[in-house]
Amino acid sequence: MKKLAAGIDIGGTNTVFGLVDSSGNILYKDAIPTTKFLLPEDLVKAVASHIQKDSLLFIDKFELLGVGIGAPNGNFFNGTVEFAPNLKWKGIVPLAKLFSDQLNCKAVLTNDAKAAAMGEMIFGGAQGMKDFIFITLGTGLGSGIVVNGQLVYGHDSFAGEIGHVIMFSDGRACGCGRNGCLETYCSATGLIKTYQQLIKNDAQTIDSKYIYDQAQIGDKYALEAFNFSGDILGLALANSVAYTSPEAIFLFGGLALAGDYIFKPTIESFEKNLLRIYKNKIKILPSQLPSNNGAVLGAASLVFF
Amino acid sequence: MKKLAAGIDIGGTNTVFGLVDSSGNILYKDAIPTTKFLLPEDLVKAVASHIQKDSLLFIDKFELLGVGIGAPNGNFFNGTVEFAPNLKWKGIVPLAKLFSDQLNCKAVLTNDAKAAAMGEMIFGGAQGMKDFIFITLGTGLGSGIVVNGQLVYGHDSFAGEIGHVIMFSDGRACGCGRNGCLETYCSATGLIKTYQQLIKNDAQTIDSKYIYDQAQIGDKYALEAFNFSGDILGLALANSVAYTSPEAIFLFGGLALAGDYIFKPTIESFEKNLLRIYKNKIKILPSQLPSNNGAVLGAASLVFF
Repeated sequence: MKKLAAGIDIGGTNTVFGLVDSSGNILYKDAIPTTKFLLPEDLVKAVASHIQKDSLLFIDKFELLGVGIGAPNGNFFNGTVEFAPNLKWKGIVPLAKLFSDQLNCKAVLTNDAKAAAMGEMIFGGAQGMKDFIFITLGTGLGSGIVVNGQLVYGHDSFAGEIGHVIMFSDGRACGCGRNGCLETYCSATGLIKTYQQLIKNDAQTIDSKYIYDQAQIGDKYALEAFNFSGDILGLALANSVAYTSPEAIFLFGGLALAGDYIFKPTIESFEKNLLRIYKNKIKILPSQLPSNNGAVLGAASLVFF
Repeated sequence: MKKLAAGIDIGGTNTVFGLVDSSGNILYKDAIPTTKFLLPEDLVKAVASHIQKDSLLFIDKFELLGVGIGAPNGNFFNGTVEFAPNLKWKGIVPLAKLFSDQLNCKAVLTNDAKAAAMGEMIFGGAQGMKDFIFITLGTGLGSGIVVNGQLVYGHDSFAGEIGHVIMFSDGRACGCGRNGCLETYCSATGLIKTYQQLIKNDAQTIDSKYIYDQAQIGDKYALEAFNFSGDILGLALANSVAYTSPEAIFLFGGLALAGDYIFKPTIESFEKNLLRIYKNKIKILPSQLPSNNGAVLGAASLVFF
């Protein structure tokens, strides 16, 4: 029997889930609104019922090996989601146990960026790499660091918050309550803020898609906004190399899809700011995970690792 | 037969070596000037001859298990010292093989700060810890990062250069050719520079011992110099936590011996700059390695790990 993993990505808005085989093929995928469920138990029951129903399609040929869960503020050691600001659930939620009990199989949980990093290693561009850094450039900046073939969890499971490295002590206010965090500059939110400052207009209608479109027609402020983000990201990644000396750094998420607009200034700043011993040997690459399925693949990869 | 390790610390000025048992007792220690030997082969022969002669004292009761070597620009993967700016030897020197051949036992080599970090884990305050960061505050700032019980080497063995994280892009010139590296502020050299700037006097006679003595008699510039170093070190260490979330950070080396003068401002700045999830749970501690024997113990610990 071929073995399948369920990959579940808990987002602030939607929970996306699917069944994935060990080669990374998604055999089935669905989503339900996270916000509809005031209690985590009810979300778990709803997701499990979908998975069980749809698993029937494969039941003769497949076995459900386990459930992998990517969730904001996910604690790998305890299988819990802890005080997640973007979820309605209060306190510490034992989400892995809830899924394990409901689906009668093992359940592995980690935070969403670490799950995607694992996905890159198992199914994506980091296959065969033992040391790499995975960066997701979305609303914020998430990261997963792999050292010697293992995700870095640290003593409390909360390692890998590169988005909250302070770049400028007197910099932009961050949602975390401090100032100058990397993600206030290098994320969709950061790009929008930079562009708004450049054009002296903070209209709510300006989103990263708009800035990308403006860049494509040669708007100098849009290009400058990308360059500014790339400059800071390149410096931050050069500093990151001084910690774990990765073979490559992968960029994932909406901002990474802007291609050269973000990669070119990032790589230029990166090489300029690298310590000499690291120069010209560390690759900055686009993630090889499909942008629409990366979260589910990442979550499922936790089961196969 | 009790097993002994030879620990060898290759310094720019002196090479210190000793025989260490598995409990961290140094049974014998000696030093010879590194600079006296134009060829690494000759240094190896001289050190080996000392060790062989002095091992005779223990020969009935002990066995030489191996040689551990801490050296600037040491490459753990290849056992080589590579383009070390503070040594007279050119290019890539296969120092581990030279020692292994000469002493007819296994030889393990890494850079000096990583060796000391390993010493902290095997013989010092990090015993039983799986995630910690070791910082040596000497002429420069060296570091060793331990994740999940393993030293972080990265893809090329050169991970762990926290001293070369750029804190301010337009900051002080660093020996590495860039500007604003952490070690230009947080090291004996950095402290001296700060003090000289504060008193507007760059006399060569000002050393860190002098600044420490001035602090002890309440000199406000000396105290301010320590506070300035601690402020920046605390911020850098708070950022470091966002990478590997260690249980503790150990400070070793001359500047760490200044006690509260450096620990107090460092810890204050550290807690102030930590992301909330890390606050009040990560310890900044003085190294428990003896300052005069830390390098030899660290080198020897490579054999016992």
